[in-house]
Amino acid sequence: MGLESQPGRRQYVKFTFFKVAPEWRRLDLTTRDQQLAEFQEVVKDWAERNLIRCYSTMGTRGDTDFMIWQVSYDLEDQQRIAGELLGTELGGWLTTPYSYLSMTKNSQYVEKYSGPERDKFTRLNLAPGEHKFLFVYPLTKLRGWYGLSKEERQEAMNQHIAIGHTYSSVKLNTTYSFGLDDQEFVLAFETDEPGDFLDLVQELRGSMSSAYTERDVPIFTCIASTAEDMLAALSRSRARAAV
Amino acid sequence: MGLESQPGRRQYVKFTFFKVAPEWRRLDLTTRDQQLAEFQEVVKDWAERNLIRCYSTMGTRGDTDFMIWQVSYDLEDQQRIAGELLGTELGGWLTTPYSYLSMTKNSQYVEKYSGPERDKFTRLNLAPGEHKFLFVYPLTKLRGWYGLSKEERQEAMNQHIAIGHTYSSVKLNTTYSFGLDDQEFVLAFETDEPGDFLDLVQELRGSMSSAYTERDVPIFTCIASTAEDMLAALSRSRARAAV
Amino acid sequence: MGLESQPGRRQYVKFTFFKVAPEWRRLDLTTRDQQLAEFQEVVKDWAERNLIRCYSTMGTRGDTDFMIWQVSYDLEDQQRIAGELLGTELGGWLTTPYSYLSMTKNSQYVEKYSGPERDKFTRLNLAPGEHKFLFVYPLTKLRGWYGLSKEERQEAMNQHIAIGHTYSSVKLNTTYSFGLDDQEFVLAFETDEPGDFLDLVQELRGSMSSAYTERDVPIFTCIASTAEDMLAALSRSRARAAV
Amino acid sequence: MGLESQPGRRQYVKFTFFKVAPEWRRLDLTTRDQQLAEFQEVVKDWAERNLIRCYSTMGTRGDTDFMIWQVSYDLEDQQRIAGELLGTELGGWLTTPYSYLSMTKNSQYVEKYSGPERDKFTRLNLAPGEHKFLFVYPLTKLRGWYGLSKEERQEAMNQHIAIGHTYSSVKLNTTYSFGLDDQEFVLAFETDEPGDFLDLVQELRGSMSSAYTERDVPIFTCIASTAEDMLAALSRSRARAAV
Amino acid sequence: MGLESQPGRRQYVKFTFFKVAPEWRRLDLTTRDQQLAEFQEVVKDWAERNLIRCYSTMGTRGDTDFMIWQVSYDLEDQQRIAGELLGTELGGWLTTPYSYLSMTKNSQYVEKYSGPERDKFTRLNLAPGEHKFLFVYPLTKLRGWYGLSKEERQEAMNQHIAIGHTYSSVKLNTTYSFGLDDQEFVLAFETDEPGDFLDLVQELRGSMSSAYTERDVPIFTCIASTAEDMLAALSRSRARAAV
Repeated sequence: MGLESQPGRRQYVKFTFFKVAPEWRRLDLTTRDQQLAEFQEVVKDWAERNLIRCYSTMGTRGDTDFMIWQVSYDLEDQQRIAGELLGTELGGWLTTPYSYLSMTKNSQYVEKYSGPERDKFTRLNLAPGEHKFLFVYPLTKLRGWYGLSKEERQEAMNQHIAIGHTYSSVKLNTTYSFGLDDQEFVLAFETDEPGDFLDLVQELRGSMSSAYTERDVPIFTCIASTAEDMLAALSRSRARAAV
Repeated sequence: MGLESQPGRRQYVKFTFFKVAPEWRRLDLTTRDQQLAEFQEVVKDWAERNLIRCYSTMGTRGDTDFMIWQVSYDLEDQQRIAGELLGTELGGWLTTPYSYLSMTKNSQYVEKYSGPERDKFTRLNLAPGEHKFLFVYPLTKLRGWYGLSKEERQEAMNQHIAIGHTYSSVKLNTTYSFGLDDQEFVLAFETDEPGDFLDLVQELRGSMSSAYTERDVPIFTCIASTAEDMLAALSRSRARAAV
Repeated sequence: MGLESQPGRRQYVKFTFFKVAPEWRRLDLTTRDQQLAEFQEVVKDWAERNLIRCYSTMGTRGDTDFMIWQVSYDLEDQQRIAGELLGTELGGWLTTPYSYLSMTKNSQYVEKYSGPERDKFTRLNLAPGEHKFLFVYPLTKLRGWYGLSKEERQEAMNQHIAIGHTYSSVKLNTTYSFGLDDQEFVLAFETDEPGDFLDLVQELRGSMSSAYTERDVPIFTCIASTAEDMLAALSRSRARAAV
Repeated sequence: MGLESQPGRRQYVKFTFFKVAPEWRRLDLTTRDQQLAEFQEVVKDWAERNLIRCYSTMGTRGDTDFMIWQVSYDLEDQQRIAGELLGTELGGWLTTPYSYLSMTKNSQYVEKYSGPERDKFTRLNLAPGEHKFLFVYPLTKLRGWYGLSKEERQEAMNQHIAIGHTYSSVKLNTTYSFGLDDQEFVLAFETDEPGDFLDLVQELRGSMSSAYTERDVPIFTCIASTAEDMLAALSRSRARAAV
Repeated sequence: MGLESQPGRRQYVKFTFFKVAPEWRRLDLTTRDQQLAEFQEVVKDWAERNLIRCYSTMGTRGDTDFMIWQVSYDLEDQQRIAGELLGTELGGWLTTPYSYLSMTKNSQYVEKYSGPERDKFTRLNLAPGEHKFLFVYPLTKLRGWYGLSKEERQEAMNQHIAIGHTYSSVKLNTTYSFGLDDQEFVLAFETDEPGDFLDLVQELRGSMSSAYTERDVPIFTCIASTAEDMLAALSRSRARAAV
């Protein structure tokens, strides 16, 4: 049933990007299918206890193949799922080239979040939607940003949020990584229209807030999938594709 | 027949750079030839549904061997072709050290594109020519660029475009990556005369626009090829070469 | 019994991050268990002569699996333990992607350290607590910091320390690496509440001292473990997990 | 016979740095000797059609073992030689960690090149000498350089050239990479006296031109060799060495 | 016998850092011992003709295992020893992640070097002492340093040298890499007291000279060893350790 919401408690959020070694693709098809089935079972098992979303990055990135977005109230759940995923047969061919750990937190800029589409979550509890695409990137701001007065930052964020609201097809999930991981924030945008998101990001380049960006890469275009489809996308035999 | 043009719709554009593992070259020649033939079939198959161009970087880069330029109206086509290419036997020896995802978009600086040679495409629909060489690089501009007024940027771009027009043998394809991938733009220049392109880039170094470049590397010199020639270039036995 | 305290002597401090090769996970379970048991013996053996703490980074980082924090009065002990750990069977599958060497030193800013919780150590002798989580990062300050007057730096540190004291659940261990390793300091924060540490780090962003940071990444979230649990976390079979 | 000079035509220039995998050194001596002989044949074959020079970097760099400097009038020759070199048996153990593509071009600063030693080439046709050592590095200048007036840049280059002329034992080959590869220039200095070159570079650090350097690394110290000696240097058995 | 001093001639200096592949540690103990013995023979053989010093970095760095410091009057000796070391059986499992090439040179700032301990060498001839620890790092200064007047630089160096002289237990060996390798200098400090060196480096942070540092990492803490001990430190079986 996923993660039961516990209002008022902060969540641990993890974006783990996996890549299969090229040698894995040399294994025979039956072996690979068995390995994928076992891995899929672990994912499904955890999806009953944690909030788990699956994404494919095949064809959108060259350095990662799929991503699992996991949300829990217990940091040690992140440890356990990692050990179980890598403890599968497939785990012997997996690396995790990118990994972002963060937590939820109430924003100091937004009194109460009102999403462009619906309002079914507060900032402390993530509630990803059913959108086809997810755009994820780690964000660190220049130290000069933190030297601005609270009023200046509020003004910059108001401008930023106002531009964002004109793109109602895009939903933002903001999480915080200060002290927990290399970045300050992890931003995850959901949308069905990649072109809209591209236009939004380009428009935001001229905003005051954007001028204080130290680092906002890598940027991942992720395709929402079931666990099964995410894994099937790793390699497609032409014979099967023709079916 | 390639990709049927759908006027007014934006396209998804992908530049994928592949490298074969050195160990692949230790396989016997027959095995390698069979693998190349299978891979080539996948490329040809997709060339009937998407716009597909093949390029060799053997001898021009040390970190990549060949590049496939793919254009589609469906982002999931990018996922499917990646899965099918890596799902071949050859896929077990391939890595993708560079990968650039972008989209087409109407320029805010050019009312209507008029290419130096012919005018057979609008900005939303890419139409690569038949030139022998392609020069590709990702581009990100300094944030200060976006802090300039629209007039200042227009003036800078006019100067930039004017210099470009004096090199009529060079055709530019501009695509946009904001929010989709690490860079802001992917630029792809087609020409038959590498020396002309070199001179153009050197001349542009003094332009106002160039001063706002944050990053414009890596730069790839790509040799236009058929799928067959692109793959044959990976390793040449001297015996064959002598034929 | 660990390391017997020698008041007035400086200690050598080492944070070594280990990663197992994916191929290790392809070995059969019995072999892996034997290897872990042998490795664990070496750790326990050294824990009788040096101060040794074990941490898991499974699920919190993608580029490292576990960390051993070792404190000794003899630099060559660091050499010996490294040789013995890598001299085990498991050592043939281990890499050490991150490694930080440092020493203890009396602070020029703090007359006498008074921890938020208890006062059982001086700056020359580390005494890690029993907290569930450890946050480690290397720190290098901008050269401009050292160009400030002693009074300016003292004022900045006073502000920094004052903010730190409002988060009484967080305990800081500062060690020095000037000339010994790439960073200037290694900071290790202990706490039971990751959210508190996140909030502390975010609040410190606005401090004067923070503006003089050149580099404070990578940041490692570490889960305190016994040697046995740290190693068991590397891969969990679902069968076992179900027990 | 090498490359027949074609006055007025620009040349394609390539510096390819190769490294053998450590595993190659585990092969038996006979196999390795046969592989080197085959590779050497390809080099000699091409030396009849292109300008080919061979250099060892064994003992001077840790990340590359040898370098082949190739000059041709046809960019596709660069593709062909790469395919043939990597198509040898040795090719299955080679990587190319560094690769620099460039072209010749008449300088805008030097009316007619007059080398410190002799005057046997124009800027469009490279004519490497018989010196024992070659020092190669890619160069990119700060964009601010291109914002200087032509007079300021000419003055800076005059100072630069004047210092260079006082070191008559050092000969410079300048080639251009704008738009073709990541760097703007590739500089290759020939000399018999490494100490003289070191002193020249140190003296140039104070020049106006040097202040506009964005990047001038990596720097490669290369030892001129025959193809045979370059390959023999890869591993020396002590038994042989004793002969 | 080592290297016979040739007064007035400059020396070639090389610091080569080696790492054994993890897989090497999977070989049986007898095979490994034989390989180490062979490697040790090559080192000893060269120590009769060149100045050779051996250091272990086991336990002090995660990315390198041991270092060989070699001094010769012939650059090609550096090539020969590299070929012979890598031509051993052990060479098939070695990489050289760091490598620094330099030369000796008379300083423009120090009339005549007078070491803190004794005066047995001039700047052109290195004479490492018998200290237990060596601290090595490559140094490149900001270009602005070279824009200072000779008087300003002399003043900065006087301050730098004066601070150094107050730490009489630390001996400095300065060598020059301009144009030969990526860094400008390689600095090698010998001492028996790591804590003294740490304090010296920290104190120098406030000096004028230090403000002009562009890059002074990586920093290597090296433990002086015989060839035999350096190699034995690579992996210690507990059984042996217990003897």
